[in-house]
Amino acid sequence: MRPYVEFETEELLELHRSLLMQYKEYQARDLQLNMARGKPCVDQLNLSMGMMDVLSGNCDLLCEDGTDCRNYGVLDGIKEAKVLMADMMEVSPDNILIYGNSSLNIMYDTISRSVTHGVMGGTPWAQLDNVKFLCPVPGYDRHFAITEYFGIEMINVPMTEDGPDMDMVESLVANDPAIKGIWCVPKYSNPQGYSYSDKTVRRFARLEPAAKDFRIYWDNAYTVHHLYDDEQDHLIEILAECKRAGNSDLVYKFASTSKISFPGSGIAAIATSHNNLEDIRHQLSIQTIGHDKVNQLRHVRYFGDIHGMIEHMRRHADILRPKFELVEEILEKELGGLGIGSWTYPKGGYFISFDAPEGCAKAIVARCKKAGVIMTPAGATYPYGMDPHDSNIRIAPSYPPLSDLELATSLFALCVKIEAIRSILTARGVSISSANSRNGVNFPHA
Amino acid sequence: MRPYVEFETEELLELHRSLLMQYKEYQARDLQLNMARGKPCVDQLNLSMGMMDVLSGNCDLLCEDGTDCRNYGVLDGIKEAKVLMADMMEVSPDNILIYGNSSLNIMYDTISRSVTHGVMGGTPWAQLDNVKFLCPVPGYDRHFAITEYFGIEMINVPMTEDGPDMDMVESLVANDPAIKGIWCVPKYSNPQGYSYSDKTVRRFARLEPAAKDFRIYWDNAYTVHHLYDDEQDHLIEILAECKRAGNSDLVYKFASTSKISFPGSGIAAIATSHNNLEDIRHQLSIQTIGHDKVNQLRHVRYFGDIHGMIEHMRRHADILRPKFELVEEILEKELGGLGIGSWTYPKGGYFISFDAPEGCAKAIVARCKKAGVIMTPAGATYPYGMDPHDSNIRIAPSYPPLSDLELATSLFALCVKIEAIRSILTARGVSISSANSRNGVNFPHA
Repeated sequence: MRPYVEFETEELLELHRSLLMQYKEYQARDLQLNMARGKPCVDQLNLSMGMMDVLSGNCDLLCEDGTDCRNYGVLDGIKEAKVLMADMMEVSPDNILIYGNSSLNIMYDTISRSVTHGVMGGTPWAQLDNVKFLCPVPGYDRHFAITEYFGIEMINVPMTEDGPDMDMVESLVANDPAIKGIWCVPKYSNPQGYSYSDKTVRRFARLEPAAKDFRIYWDNAYTVHHLYDDEQDHLIEILAECKRAGNSDLVYKFASTSKISFPGSGIAAIATSHNNLEDIRHQLSIQTIGHDKVNQLRHVRYFGDIHGMIEHMRRHADILRPKFELVEEILEKELGGLGIGSWTYPKGGYFISFDAPEGCAKAIVARCKKAGVIMTPAGATYPYGMDPHDSNIRIAPSYPPLSDLELATSLFALCVKIEAIRSILTARGVSISSANSRNGVNFPHA
Repeated sequence: MRPYVEFETEELLELHRSLLMQYKEYQARDLQLNMARGKPCVDQLNLSMGMMDVLSGNCDLLCEDGTDCRNYGVLDGIKEAKVLMADMMEVSPDNILIYGNSSLNIMYDTISRSVTHGVMGGTPWAQLDNVKFLCPVPGYDRHFAITEYFGIEMINVPMTEDGPDMDMVESLVANDPAIKGIWCVPKYSNPQGYSYSDKTVRRFARLEPAAKDFRIYWDNAYTVHHLYDDEQDHLIEILAECKRAGNSDLVYKFASTSKISFPGSGIAAIATSHNNLEDIRHQLSIQTIGHDKVNQLRHVRYFGDIHGMIEHMRRHADILRPKFELVEEILEKELGGLGIGSWTYPKGGYFISFDAPEGCAKAIVARCKKAGVIMTPAGATYPYGMDPHDSNIRIAPSYPPLSDLELATSLFALCVKIEAIRSILTARGVSISSANSRNGVNFPHA
C-alpha cells in the first residue's frame, strides 16, 4: 500500500466517504465490545478452577511448620507461600512480604507510608514542599493515579524499546532531591510490551539519586506472563543487581498472582532489602494482624511449586497468543504501509501499544465508542491523562473472544483510517466536516 | 473470706510463704499457657470448615446479578455480601463498603486517609499542628497503636458500665477542635465486656464536636458474639440514631467476620453515611481495583443469610461460654471476698477485665510469665501502654482448652494473691523480699 500522505486530496475524500459507509455498517450492528482493560477472559479464569477444591473441609489447613492458617498471625505470610512467590519473583524468600489480594494496594500503601512516615527514617513526604516521581511514558494509568492522588508532581520520561531514557533518568535523579521515585513495569511493559535491556537494568541498579529516600517502584506485573515458549524476554533480576552495585535499598519490587490465578482473589507480595523490610514490617504490624493465610495456602497447594505455576502460565499463553496474533494480523493487513500508525509486537504481558498520527488518538477512541467498541481512554497512558501528542492508544486483547476481537480490531483500524485522513486533509486546509456534511456524520473533536 | 487488709502482718507473711510454695509447684510443672490474645480456639475454627467446600471447581462463581466473582472489579463488594454484612451490622446494604480480611486494616486506612487527605474536604491532619483522639480506658491496644503511630495525642476517658464517661466526652469534643475522633468498642467492650447503654448511644449521636471532621470510630467487633441465648446485651444502632439526631456523617462503624468464620480469612466492612462513603470510595478507587470477591461469595454461600450466621454464632457460644464461666468461677472461689481484685462478667465478646490492687498489675503478669502463663502485658489496655494505676489486666479465655484454662486461671489467682500481699505489706513498711529472702525467690518490680 501507498502511504496516505501520498494520496491526492480528491482520492482521500473519496476514500473517506467509502470508509464512512463501512463505519455506518458497523454502527448498525449495535456492537458492545471492550478492549479497554487487561482482564483475563473466562477461559483463562476456568484454568484455575481446580484451586477451589485443594482445600476441603476434610483436610487440615496447617502449614509445613504446623501453623494453623485459619487463625490470627504470621504478618509476613506463610513460609511456603513466600517460597512460591520468591521463586516467581526470582528473589530469596527472606526478601519477601506477602500482602493481600492486590499489588496495586501494596504500591498505594508504600507511597502512603512514605507520605506519612518517610522512608527508612527520612522526612515524611507530607512535610516536604515538593515531591516528584519519574513516569516512563506511555505507562500504567493506575500508577499515575496514585502519585497524582498524593499530589506528587509527575515528570514524563520517554520509553524506548530498551526501557526508559536512562540518560534522562540518571541526570534527573542525580540533580533533584525532590525526585523520590520512578514507576517501572520492566517486563512486557504496560502498554508497549517492551522489556528493559540488560544495560537499562544495570544503569537502574547504579543510579546515584540526590534523594536518599529515592526508590525504584519495580512493578514486575508480567514476570511469568509469556506468550511464547521459545521466545521469551529475559530481565536481569533487579534486587541482586542492586546488591552487586552496593545499592541494596534502592528498589521495591511488586508482583501478584492476579493474572495467574484469579484477579482480585490472588496473592500479592513485595520483595525488597532487609532494611526496607524492617521499615515496612514496623508499619504493617500497626495496620493489620496478618493477611489471608488460607488463600496463601490455597495457592501453594494448587500450584505446588514454581514449576507448576510455569506450566499453568503455558495454558494462559495458549489462550492469549492467538488473540495477540489476531490483533497484530488485522493491524498489519488493514494499516500496514499506510503510514498512519505504528504498533508493538509484545512477547508477553497484556497489551499492544498503538501510536496514531499526532492529534488523532482521542478522535479514534471516541469514534470507536460511538460504534460500540470501548478502548482505554486516549491519554490514559500518560500522567494527568495528558498525552502531549494525542497519539498513544492502549489495546487490551485478552478479554473478548476471538470473534469479537476480530470485529473490534477491524473497527478500530477503520476508525484509525477515517481519523488519519481527516488529519491529513485538515493539514491541507480541507475541512472534512463540510466536504462530507451531506452524509450527516458527526465528527467528534473535528 | 476476710479481706486481706484485715489480716495481721504475721498472718500475711505466713500466708505469703505458703502461697510461694504453691507457686513453686506450678513453676516445676513447666507450663506453656496463653491467655494473652482474643484468638478463637481450634474447636471454634473447626465450626467453619464447611466453608472450604461451598465453592467447588464444578460450580459457578457468579453473583446473583451475573457478575463473575473471579475477575476484576466491584469496588464496593458484591451485593449479596453487602446484604449479609448489612444485616449483621444492622444497617442498609447501601451504607456498606466491603474491604479485605481485616477491620483493623480498614481503621488504619481510615486514619491514614484522614492524615493525608482530610475528612470530607477538611484539612489533611498532616497539615495540623495538633490532632487528638479520645480513648475510653481500659480499651483495645491495637486501636491505640494506630493513633500513636500517626502521632495523634491520646486522651484517656474512663469507662463505666454504661460506656465512656459521656460528660467528659461531650465537654472535650465541644471545646477542642483538635479532637478528631474517639475509639469505641460499644458492645461487649474490649476488655471489660460492657455494652453502651441506650443513653450513652443517644448522647454519642448527639455530640456537637467543635471539629467538623470529628468522627466516632465505632468498632462493633462483637455485634453477634453473644455468650448466652437468653441474656444478650442490646445496643442502639448508631447510624440510625445519628440520622435521627441530624448527625448522619458523625460515625464510621466497623465489623468483620474474623471471629465468626476464620481470623485473617474473613471479610471486613465499614458502614457509614452516603457522604462519608463517597469520600471513601474516591480514595479506595485509587488504592485498589477491588477486594477478594471469591471470599465474599464463599461467606454468602456458607452462611446463606443472617439467620445462618446467628445459628453459627450459637455454636461458637457453646464453646466459649464454659470457658468464661470457668474463669469467673475460679476467680470467685480463689479471690472472692479478699478485697484484692475485681473482675467483669461479660455476656459476650472475648475478654474478662481484671482490676488488681493499684501498682500490682505488672508484677502479677510478670509473675505469671515466670511460671509459663502468658497474659496480655499489663498497661496494654491503656494508650502508650501506661495504666496510671498499674491495675488493669485483660484475660482472654477463648484459646486454651478448658483444662489449661483452669490451670492458668488458678495460677493467675495465686499470683494476684502473692502480689497483693506484697503490696499490703509494703504499705505497712514490711519488705517482703527481705522477709522471704531465705526462700531465694526473685520478686519482679519489687
